[in-house]
Parts: sequence; structure tokens; C-alpha cells
Amino acid sequence: MDMTAPARIDMDRFWATMERSAEIGPGRPGGLSRLAASDADREVRDQFVAWCREAGLSVRIDGIGNIFARRAGTDDNLPPVVMGSHLDTQFNGGRFDGILGVLGGLEVCRALDTIGHRTRRPIELVNWTNEEGARFSPPMVGSGTFTGAYTLDWAHGRVDEEGRRLGDELARIGYRGEMEETPHAFDAYYELHIEQGPILDREGMQVGVVTGGFPSTGMLIEFRGETAHTGPWPMEWRKNALIAGARFLVAVDDLGWVHAGTGGKATAARLVAWPNKPGILSDWAQAVGDVRHPDPTTSAVMAEAMRRAAYESAAKADCSVEILDIWQWGGNIFAPELVEQVRGIASARGYRHRDILSQAGHDAYFVARHAPTTMIFTPCRGGITHNNGEFCSREDLEPGLDVLLRAVLARADRVE
Amino acid sequence: MDMTAPARIDMDRFWATMERSAEIGPGRPGGLSRLAASDADREVRDQFVAWCREAGLSVRIDGIGNIFARRAGTDDNLPPVVMGSHLDTQFNGGRFDGILGVLGGLEVCRALDTIGHRTRRPIELVNWTNEEGARFSPPMVGSGTFTGAYTLDWAHGRVDEEGRRLGDELARIGYRGEMEETPHAFDAYYELHIEQGPILDREGMQVGVVTGGFPSTGMLIEFRGETAHTGPWPMEWRKNALIAGARFLVAVDDLGWVHAGTGGKATAARLVAWPNKPGILSDWAQAVGDVRHPDPTTSAVMAEAMRRAAYESAAKADCSVEILDIWQWGGNIFAPELVEQVRGIASARGYRHRDILSQAGHDAYFVARHAPTTMIFTPCRGGITHNNGEFCSREDLEPGLDVLLRAVLARADRVE
Repeated sequence: MDMTAPARIDMDRFWATMERSAEIGPGRPGGLSRLAASDADREVRDQFVAWCREAGLSVRIDGIGNIFARRAGTDDNLPPVVMGSHLDTQFNGGRFDGILGVLGGLEVCRALDTIGHRTRRPIELVNWTNEEGARFSPPMVGSGTFTGAYTLDWAHGRVDEEGRRLGDELARIGYRGEMEETPHAFDAYYELHIEQGPILDREGMQVGVVTGGFPSTGMLIEFRGETAHTGPWPMEWRKNALIAGARFLVAVDDLGWVHAGTGGKATAARLVAWPNKPGILSDWAQAVGDVRHPDPTTSAVMAEAMRRAAYESAAKADCSVEILDIWQWGGNIFAPELVEQVRGIASARGYRHRDILSQAGHDAYFVARHAPTTMIFTPCRGGITHNNGEFCSREDLEPGLDVLLRAVLARADRVE
Repeated sequence: MDMTAPARIDMDRFWATMERSAEIGPGRPGGLSRLAASDADREVRDQFVAWCREAGLSVRIDGIGNIFARRAGTDDNLPPVVMGSHLDTQFNGGRFDGILGVLGGLEVCRALDTIGHRTRRPIELVNWTNEEGARFSPPMVGSGTFTGAYTLDWAHGRVDEEGRRLGDELARIGYRGEMEETPHAFDAYYELHIEQGPILDREGMQVGVVTGGFPSTGMLIEFRGETAHTGPWPMEWRKNALIAGARFLVAVDDLGWVHAGTGGKATAARLVAWPNKPGILSDWAQAVGDVRHPDPTTSAVMAEAMRRAAYESAAKADCSVEILDIWQWGGNIFAPELVEQVRGIASARGYRHRDILSQAGHDAYFVARHAPTTMIFTPCRGGITHNNGEFCSREDLEPGLDVLLRAVLARADRVE
């Protein structure tokens, strides 16, 4: 194929598609609350599938609800070049997080249709199920199950706070298909995403060339104590699991401050307890904490300090503690040849760009275990995300979309 | 009347009544989970009303579900001598807390029937609604509404975690009657209760002569921040309301330790937040804390330190804070003549007894604003309460029941 073919992003068409998405699952003003496997998720999936079919893509749903939409190649037996992200959002989510990567990929397919170009390799567009983990924990369940980090049964068994199972909810909304025996090979995977941080916006950069992710560690901790009356029970006999959890949260936050000067972050994001009522000490609590730092050694030091904080917090409250789960993500996980390709395109197109590490987790982290993978970041205003104030202008997004189009096109047409 | 009348507690009869109560609303092994205005609460109320009617008492339900059961006096226009407590329990409650004071009062009535004695003044037995505050906050709603601390509409509007209103739930279980225009006068109010602390048991005392309550202060605090992604969002921009709440809880607990040596207690008993999920900072949290100390000045110092901790915790997490409610209880609230009467009877009967302050809140605290009031404590094993391990033997309870019988009888028959 002729690489000078005038494939181009149609920003009017793309923006209209984003605006339609932003009508589905309204949250706080300007934002979305489109939880995985909810009625709103069904509605956006139905709309997405309709768009894919209009664009001539063939649609397949897998056992965990991931939607694969395929555009045939001229050499259709070659593994596809894949783009994607997620259409679900947080409780107080924005209209760009995840959605950009899916609907941006749709725009790439449409742009190729507009010029009547068929690539050598097939192209696939994927919407991963439950990236956010807002309703069903953990996050990135769809990409994790596809790539074998989670079994299908385990993923189906995740429950929301009302006790509903993810597998049942996917069936309810009509998006529980069949898993492949072996996940099909990808030639490459590109995920376009808003930065979800302030760096590109602050520096006036148009494109973030994502070289990897902050080495990060998360933990789910459980504390057990004893119920007792809050009044007469002597301080020295108390085993208040809620206090063990609160001490852990504070220790994790303090850890973030210790390393804030070098870019570290530590987050205590969740604490639940039982009975968690005035008048009675709680005998059970669960807390979630995570630490992230760009330097792998410092990140490991922070993870160890968080682990120690779990035991210290339990000891101070005279409770027992169990670390139920530890998960790690980030590091140098992306394919150097794809990172280089993205950087080269951004340079050739004259965009202000910089290398950047992702600080959030993304589906690309799991896909990187399966195929050569990279990400492309766009700026977002003030770095605000997971908040209805999340905002990008058309101009913020166009360079990233253009780089995605050119990278996918070149990758899909390459001859080797 | 002849004060040598052989009125006596029938421990077999009393114990069988307690055992029947302990079948209703089973909780963890040996304990109860009989929440206010639940089906189990209806069942125990129905049983209680049946017992009262068998004992010839006339039963009246007021607008907040308090049950008054009246035994006529020979001079029936005199204000009644009142006994009572509550039949509801905590989520993980025992079978004695509250229940002893209600069913012990029933045994007093039965004991008078056994000897065919009618007192000069009427006697009333009361079951106060929702003393525990486990399902509907705050605690002691029934006695608080009867005595005018809360309006009936406000009390009816208390909601549980599923959004059900207390007023509706009382109507559902058939226990929403009519409020008196003015609450009727009591000649005196006696509340028999387990100590809910370890002092009597540790010292081998049989009866606690309750001279007052620990001066105590509770607060309901609300923090507001902003949602954001837990990953890239810089530490210095974070406004995590969950962390504000956790810092408040830890500060309250620390305060308890500072004053533990002189008998002080501070409890952080509740923390809820939204969205309270991994991956997102919470923009809302509510916490409840309370402080108690036998010395009024120290108690006031602790209350002020807790108030300061609310502001400091919010400031450290860059959140705003509002103190939604402050409540105070305890102090020298009981009637000296009743305290002296109870002490005299315990001495005359040869029981090992001591003066003691109540550390928990009780319905008697509100009733003390309405009528001369006192409490009688029995030991409970190890002081364990608000826990299914709460335990008293028949021998632990008999002296307190005997003192209650003799105090009520003397008070009801006195001529002045």
C-alpha cells in the first residue's frame, strides 16, 4: 500500500460519536456513572456494536463479555493489529477515561473505510469488560481473563455489593459469550488513553509516548478483632478492627507523603468494617492500599513499608491481620519497537511529545503479557480524572488519534 | 402495707422468661441480633405484651413504639413508679443487655401477684424503643422522644442503611401507637441493667449502686473532598475524605490512650465513605467518635481535643469538615434519694455492693430529665457485652432483682 494515502481522522465524526456515548449512563453533571454489566453498560455496548456493524466489522463476544470487532485484512490469516480500551466508568467517572481508546479505534476503522483502504493484516477493536473495578473488584477483569491471569469461573464469581455475580450480570445484559480455547494471537496492541495526570497538560505536550508504568503494588488486608461496648470496655482490652484499618490507611497515606517529592504516591482507597456502628467496637475490617513510584527500588521499599504497616496497625489495635491479596503492576512492560514507532510518528508529524510513564493501571498491562503492546497518551485538563470534571477539548485529542491511526496503519500494512 | 410481706423473686420463673426471650432473634452462638423494629423485635414485643396481659397489666403503645404496661394501684391517681429498659439488641448483642431491666420488672410484677399485694401507687413497666441505635441512629430514641429530647416526626424519620424509616417500620410491625399530648408524670424510675464493664465482676460485688454516668461527649463529623484517580494524582492535590475520616478515628483512639490510666475512654466506632473503592479517592466521609471520663473537667478537655482532631484531620487531608451533631450525656443526673434508697436496701440485705458510675448510655439518662431516676447494676462475666459472649449466671442476677423488687415496692407503697 501507498503510505501517502490520505487517511485522516474526521474530528467532527469522532466528536459526535463521543457525545453520543456521553449520553449513556449519566453521572454527576458532565460525567458518567456507567458501571460494568449495568443497564447503562448494556446500552453503550449495544450502541458500540451497532456502530461496529455499520463500519463493516464482524463482532464477537467472549466469555467474560469482551467485545472484539474485526476488520478483515488482505492477508486475513495473519494475526490482527489490535486497538482498544474500555467503555465502563467509575461511580463518579468522566466521559473520556477508557472511552477514548475504544471510540478512537472505531474512528481509525472509519477513516480507513473513507479512503477505501484494506490493510494487509486484519485490524481488531476491543472493548474490555470491567476495567474500572468500580462495581466488581478487581479492575481489568476482562483483559486479565483473556490473557489468562484470571480463570473464567473466578471472574464470573466476582460479586458486587448487592451480592450479584459478574457472570450472571453479563448474561442478564446479553454479553456473556464463549471463551476461545486459546486466546488468539495479536500482532500488536495499541491503547490510546487520556493521561489521567497533569504532566502533558502542564507542559503543553500534545502526545505522551508511554514507555512503561510506575512499578506499583496493591494489597487487600483483613483485620479481625472483637466486638465490645464502646463505653465501659477498657482501652487496654479493646480489639477494634475499625481502628486497625484506620491506622493502616493513615500509615499508607503518610508513606505517600514521604515519597511525594520524588513522584511517589500511596493511596488508602477503601475501608469497610462490621458492624461499623456507634456503640460497638467492630470485629472485622478490610482495607485496600497501594503504592507507586517511578523508581523500581523505591517502589519495592514502599511496598515493604506498606506490608509492615499492616502488621503494625493490627498490633496497635490488638487485632489479627491477614494479607488476603497482593498484586503488582507496571514496570518496563511495553514493546520497545512499538514505543519507538509511536515516538517516531509523533516526531515526524511535528507534535510536541515526551516520553512518560503511566501511573494508573490499564488493560494494556495485561495485554503486554500476550503481545507486543504500547500506549499513547493525550493530555487532559489539569489531570483531573475519576471525577465528573474530567475534560479534554477536540484539540487535545486530535494529535493522539492521528498517531494511533498512522501507527496502526503502518503496523498492519508492514511487509516482513 | 406490711413491709415484711414475703414478696420474693422466683428465679426459676424469671430464668425461664429470659430463656424464652433468648430464642427470639438469634445472633452468633449464645447471642442475639434483635434490631429495633425488625421482625424479631415484633416477635419479642408480642411475647412481652402477652406476658404482661397474663400478669393483669394494661398495655399501651405510644407514638414511637414504647410499650407501657400498667399495674393499678390502690390510689390509682398517683403517678406510677416505673421500671424498664429495652428489648432490642446490637447486631452482635447478648441476651441480658437491656432485657434484664424489662423482664426483671415483669418478675417484680409477678412476685407482687404471687403474694396478692396491690401497691398504693400504680406500677409501670416500660420497654423503650431502639435503645441500641444499631439499626437506626441515634440510640435511645424511644426514651428521648418520650421525654421531649426528640420530636416524634424527627424520630419517625430516622432511616436504616436500606433507607427504611423507623416510623414506617414501627407501623409495619404493629407498634406505632399514639403519643400522649404531655408525657405522664413518673413518681420514680428504676432501671436494672448489667454493668457492661468488668468492675463488679472483678471485685466480687453483687450490686452496683449507680450514682451517675461518666460525663461523655459524642460527635458526628462529615468530611468533604474530591474524587480523583488513585494513581497519577499528586499527593499534594489530594482531597481524600476517607483519609480525613481515618485520621480522625486514629486521633480519637490516641486520645483514649492518653487518658486510659485515669479511666478515660475514647472510641472511634464508625466510618463510612463514598465511593470507598480501590482506584478512586473518596469525596465524602462520615465518622462518629465519643469520649468519656469520670472526671467532668477531664471529660470536657477530651471533648475539646476530639473537636480539634476533626479540624486537624480535615486540614491534613485538605478536606472541609462539618460537625453535624454533638451530644452529651452522663454526669450527676440521678436522684440522691433513690440512690440512697438502693444503697440502703443493698446494705440491709447483706449484699456486697459498691457505688459505681455508668460508662454506657442508658434510657435512664433521658428519663432522669423527666422524673427522679436511678439505676441498679448487676455484674456480668468479665464485663463482656455487645458481644455474643455476654454472660450472667442466675446467681449474678438475683441480688439486683431482689433490690429492684424491694426498692419499687417501698417506693410505691410509701405514704407522704
